[in-house]
Amino acid sequence: MPQPPPPLASPLWRSLRAYQIFGANTEVGKTVFSTLLCKAAAARTTGRGVAFLKPVSTGPDSEADDRWTTQADMYAPLRLPVVLVGDSRLGGISQTISAFESLRMRGYDVESVVLFKEDKYQNFDYLSEYFAEHHDVPVAGVIEPPERKSSLEDDVRAMAKYYEEQSQAKNTGDVISHLDKRHEQRIASLDSMASQALEKIWYPFTQHSLLTPKDINVIDSAHGDYFQTLAPSSSSSSSQNDSLLRASFDGSASWWTQGLGHANPRLTLAAAYAAGRYGHVMFASGIHRPALELSSTLLKGMNSPRLDRVFFSDNGSTGIEVALKMGLGAAKLRYGWAKEEKLGIVGLKGSYHGDTIGAMDCSEPSGYNEKVEWYDGKGHWFDYPTVLCIGGKWRVNVPEELRQALGEDADFGSLSEIFNVQGREQKGHHIRYEAFIRESLERLVKQGRRFGSVIIEPVVLGAGGMALVDPLFQRALVNVVRKSPDLFRKPGAAVEETSSDPNAWTGLPIIFDEVFTGLYRLGRFTSSSFLNTYADISVHAKLLTGGLVPLCTTLASENIFQSFSSQDKTDALLHGHSYTAHPVGCQVALESLNDLQKMDQDGSWDWAKSQGWKSSEASLTSGQSSTNVWSTWPRDLVEDLSRQTDRVSGIWALGSVLAIHIKDASGSTGYFSNAAQDLRDTLIAGDSEGANGSWNVHCRVLGNVLYLMAGQKTTEESIAQISSELRKGLQA
Amino acid sequence: MPQPPPPLASPLWRSLRAYQIFGANTEVGKTVFSTLLCKAAAARTTGRGVAFLKPVSTGPDSEADDRWTTQADMYAPLRLPVVLVGDSRLGGISQTISAFESLRMRGYDVESVVLFKEDKYQNFDYLSEYFAEHHDVPVAGVIEPPERKSSLEDDVRAMAKYYEEQSQAKNTGDVISHLDKRHEQRIASLDSMASQALEKIWYPFTQHSLLTPKDINVIDSAHGDYFQTLAPSSSSSSSQNDSLLRASFDGSASWWTQGLGHANPRLTLAAAYAAGRYGHVMFASGIHRPALELSSTLLKGMNSPRLDRVFFSDNGSTGIEVALKMGLGAAKLRYGWAKEEKLGIVGLKGSYHGDTIGAMDCSEPSGYNEKVEWYDGKGHWFDYPTVLCIGGKWRVNVPEELRQALGEDADFGSLSEIFNVQGREQKGHHIRYEAFIRESLERLVKQGRRFGSVIIEPVVLGAGGMALVDPLFQRALVNVVRKSPDLFRKPGAAVEETSSDPNAWTGLPIIFDEVFTGLYRLGRFTSSSFLNTYADISVHAKLLTGGLVPLCTTLASENIFQSFSSQDKTDALLHGHSYTAHPVGCQVALESLNDLQKMDQDGSWDWAKSQGWKSSEASLTSGQSSTNVWSTWPRDLVEDLSRQTDRVSGIWALGSVLAIHIKDASGSTGYFSNAAQDLRDTLIAGDSEGANGSWNVHCRVLGNVLYLMAGQKTTEESIAQISSELRKGLQA
Repeated sequence: MPQPPPPLASPLWRSLRAYQIFGANTEVGKTVFSTLLCKAAAARTTGRGVAFLKPVSTGPDSEADDRWTTQADMYAPLRLPVVLVGDSRLGGISQTISAFESLRMRGYDVESVVLFKEDKYQNFDYLSEYFAEHHDVPVAGVIEPPERKSSLEDDVRAMAKYYEEQSQAKNTGDVISHLDKRHEQRIASLDSMASQALEKIWYPFTQHSLLTPKDINVIDSAHGDYFQTLAPSSSSSSSQNDSLLRASFDGSASWWTQGLGHANPRLTLAAAYAAGRYGHVMFASGIHRPALELSSTLLKGMNSPRLDRVFFSDNGSTGIEVALKMGLGAAKLRYGWAKEEKLGIVGLKGSYHGDTIGAMDCSEPSGYNEKVEWYDGKGHWFDYPTVLCIGGKWRVNVPEELRQALGEDADFGSLSEIFNVQGREQKGHHIRYEAFIRESLERLVKQGRRFGSVIIEPVVLGAGGMALVDPLFQRALVNVVRKSPDLFRKPGAAVEETSSDPNAWTGLPIIFDEVFTGLYRLGRFTSSSFLNTYADISVHAKLLTGGLVPLCTTLASENIFQSFSSQDKTDALLHGHSYTAHPVGCQVALESLNDLQKMDQDGSWDWAKSQGWKSSEASLTSGQSSTNVWSTWPRDLVEDLSRQTDRVSGIWALGSVLAIHIKDASGSTGYFSNAAQDLRDTLIAGDSEGANGSWNVHCRVLGNVLYLMAGQKTTEESIAQISSELRKGLQA
Repeated sequence: MPQPPPPLASPLWRSLRAYQIFGANTEVGKTVFSTLLCKAAAARTTGRGVAFLKPVSTGPDSEADDRWTTQADMYAPLRLPVVLVGDSRLGGISQTISAFESLRMRGYDVESVVLFKEDKYQNFDYLSEYFAEHHDVPVAGVIEPPERKSSLEDDVRAMAKYYEEQSQAKNTGDVISHLDKRHEQRIASLDSMASQALEKIWYPFTQHSLLTPKDINVIDSAHGDYFQTLAPSSSSSSSQNDSLLRASFDGSASWWTQGLGHANPRLTLAAAYAAGRYGHVMFASGIHRPALELSSTLLKGMNSPRLDRVFFSDNGSTGIEVALKMGLGAAKLRYGWAKEEKLGIVGLKGSYHGDTIGAMDCSEPSGYNEKVEWYDGKGHWFDYPTVLCIGGKWRVNVPEELRQALGEDADFGSLSEIFNVQGREQKGHHIRYEAFIRESLERLVKQGRRFGSVIIEPVVLGAGGMALVDPLFQRALVNVVRKSPDLFRKPGAAVEETSSDPNAWTGLPIIFDEVFTGLYRLGRFTSSSFLNTYADISVHAKLLTGGLVPLCTTLASENIFQSFSSQDKTDALLHGHSYTAHPVGCQVALESLNDLQKMDQDGSWDWAKSQGWKSSEASLTSGQSSTNVWSTWPRDLVEDLSRQTDRVSGIWALGSVLAIHIKDASGSTGYFSNAAQDLRDTLIAGDSEGANGSWNVHCRVLGNVLYLMAGQKTTEESIAQISSELRKGLQA
């Protein structure tokens, strides 16, 4: 479908009113009603302009006139209020209702239905009642124009008289008054939303005392990668001619969920279909098509010999709690720990797995959890080498405390070379990593520590500060744990029998938290593939539904599953939410995954891969594709910005994520640093020079890190525009 | 909208195929295509019947023919596969697409689009490509019938020839073959879903080893209160003539979420509108209309001077974790407890607040949590008197251990009398309750216990076994705690200043978990009103969205909110999920609450209230309405079944919930009892004598309790039918 070039501000002015006229059918009188409403409006609204836009049409019989659904798609980002011209003829009732539904599901506000009033079918009577009862939309009836006269002159005169009379008729006037009222309401609502929000809403992750109405992003609608937000009224460049709205690039991909574009019509229809076919149906001991198909698609997409089962929950945090119950339960059973011998997890420093207490307990103590009453971190968290582009070089950075064990920082020719974990293993790079991990675990176990699972976010630690971890280190951690059941069994216990199942877990169950990193956020279906290994339990959410509704799946191996199987009900995994596997979420997820997989296969991201991410084949091991490690963000951009070493401590890009680590003059780092705020403020202030009205880049910081996250359908053009803003912002 | 009388089985036979023909517009050739497809099918499918059902129409010009959207609503529960006759005329492209969308959002599977092929507009070419690309639906073009001849005889002959030729044409044959293939696929899918589910799904709260394919409820669709489920093939009454599907009353109200009917068209359109207008938009520091309006509606509906703020999350469990962070955080701050002085909660035995670790820790140790590795219950749980109808009497039952403190069981004339808490306070019934609670807390505090919040489910403990708690006891608990800050402050600490805010919490923050009990599940907007008191923090989910998608809100007082306000980011409530306040959920919730409130006000439940629930006014205190305590389930039914004292230990009904406590011969009670399974199995086996095909009552047990839960739109007729099944089931 053709789209106007972003970023395009939706037109909404205080005085001028603009409406879009759609006809429920062809030849229902769009031209007559447009003329009539213009005339009536001109007479009633002195000093203010009113525009009624009829879909493009080149003649009464043109094909263009035939395709209002296409135009409804094309103009959807602008979301002009709609006047729907109903059909007064035979069949017109259903045509009008159906057209209304099609507009509504594209996010339009149909403010008024107008149609000719005639006696034979009385569609007006039926529709007035129908729209009043079901949709609270007024329907206005206007008498039909006179029959065509034999002479042109007579015809013109008759029509002039008709327009004169009808534009002054009460019904017509009521339409204009209603549109006026709704226009005022819409603007009043936009004007007051920020202050009302600060009175009624308790925001997530927000210190309210630091928030003022101007910090609130008032979102009128969203389409593709762009919000339409209320533009700051105090802007020096604002004038009478500027729209109240501006296009804002959704630079946090709507809190990391967005992939297929806001208001994606396929996802909308998928949601509506599942709602219309099922609503929600209880899932315990039940099954429905969307849940089963989604399970198959996920298991097949993961392509892992270790993942056989799908457990549904509502978000990443609950999915992690499920994973913990699975992993810790399996370990407890196999190693025969007593009830009071509590097990901890093995993880990485700075990991973040969610906000419920169980998920929080997987992270080490930090500013995120220190004031949460019931937080009680349970585990050991390894420090690790990270990957950053610094001064134009791709570097594995080893924390100072680990250099003695792991060696010095090392530069590589490209990100692909760092991610070539098999190649690096052939060179023995993993040996020091494995030794360090094994020794650390031995020491902990000697201190009496007990572990029940490993939990890591493959490659990228998200909320913990957008750290790109050396994949070889994570791989080494998994490999050491799997080779070391001796470290995890109960002291003195007999060595457990070897399972005949080649995919049974060994050492500890390995949990991969792919909530943020999976499903193409980093360019691949599963981020576990960067480690060239498989998890025993894997958690997926966020992009799972393409960015529409909450849904989470926790995948597990048959071996883990069997740990919960017995004749005793209390051995079951006693977890479940009421909306488990809700059909709307499953259907949307199925549609999303199919679309993402199709894009992966049909070369939709070739433009991005060719932005400098293809490495020389020579540096890769056989079988590894050179286009496997790539980003939506151009390599040039990353390397150039990384040379701003006075402000930037390092940058990385992978998949649709770009993370800029800003130097903090105060020396503080992490979530509670304010270092990245200047850059954020510059981007949010925006570019008032946009060819299509003002626009800006809405983005978030995580302490000293400013990140930008694109969707999986973001265009090369958008990326180029935003890259240019970034360059300006960092050079300023 | 007219609905066929439930329970009606959707027609799906192995051999006979039935299709519904919808026309995208009037006069698009529905009759011609019906005839053509019948003829073609008859020729090709020997030994099998095929029926093509055209919407009711009494003549070419009839009004009925005009209202296919109405018919699409009416027939939606049957969900016959659809052949959509597209419009080949000017305007027909959009008419066809829009009709497709309207059918799809009603849950129909449009299997094939057919239309006349003509040269002028070439709608066929456009639509073939459009439906292939966007919806994977084949479009078949058929040449137009001959022009009408001047003589009837010629006309008949020409049409006969047309039908003869076209029914044998490849295009027509392809349609039949495609429909055949899809029919086979649908049946194969239904036949295999149970076994596939048992291979791929890990079910919530399920001991898989006890599950066989026949225990799986295969749900083809759902409408109103009824699923359409795969009927058991081994049923003795099944024959060639029976549909493969049967209507199943959704007796667990889809795990307690369902209120406005499955596939409610208003909720579907609300979901589609929000998806089309926004998708999901990030909520931290953002605001959108559905979230703000929902917040206002909730706060207004609660009508509480103590609830001012709305925090969004995804489900009851996460909403409880948010409430705990709020309540415990506020108490910790006010009383100045040190970081290591951990606070517990005060609750009731058998409470259940969700499956994440923080929510689990609010419950006392039990079979639900004893094997969850990180479970660590933190608090004190009071035992309490319950309410049951036993042998026809309404009784407050005092647990044996508490009789010395609280007195003996007491009979009342009606449920309303028990719920008249103010009247009972005037008689001093609360004095022993309050003394017992105060003394227990004093004893615990002397033992060094520290508390940070009270958390209770007002009136009904759901997952803990469907216990109806004496509301006077819960009210007493709240009142004692609020009067007793001396028990909760740090020993030796100065008495804190009295707040100037009359709605500031005292003693401890009171959290009401209304996830299950609120929003009309028990007949009222808020179940706190049964206690005649207000919470400081209140959690709402399940019915919040009328039973469509997950969403939760945690409401809090301004006083609680201010505890998290400071100049320090780490003092903020650091909790938030990616899909926080997702617009689809908020818009659906807004629509649901508006609808529920309208039903409450317009007397929609008068039929239920008049089923014996109106008490004599004399027994009530002034201002209390006699119709305030009522159930969808007739009082007669409850009292009659309660007289089956050999099997039933007691029954209660309130709002849409009916809970039958079955005697367990083995003496075991609670979640792991099997006592109620026989009754459940009887109801699920169903009535094969239904006038509209076989139907059954799908229901769940909680250990020794069988409960039935209706929706808020369930009809008197459905309740009567199910009541009759219940009477039969318990007399058998």
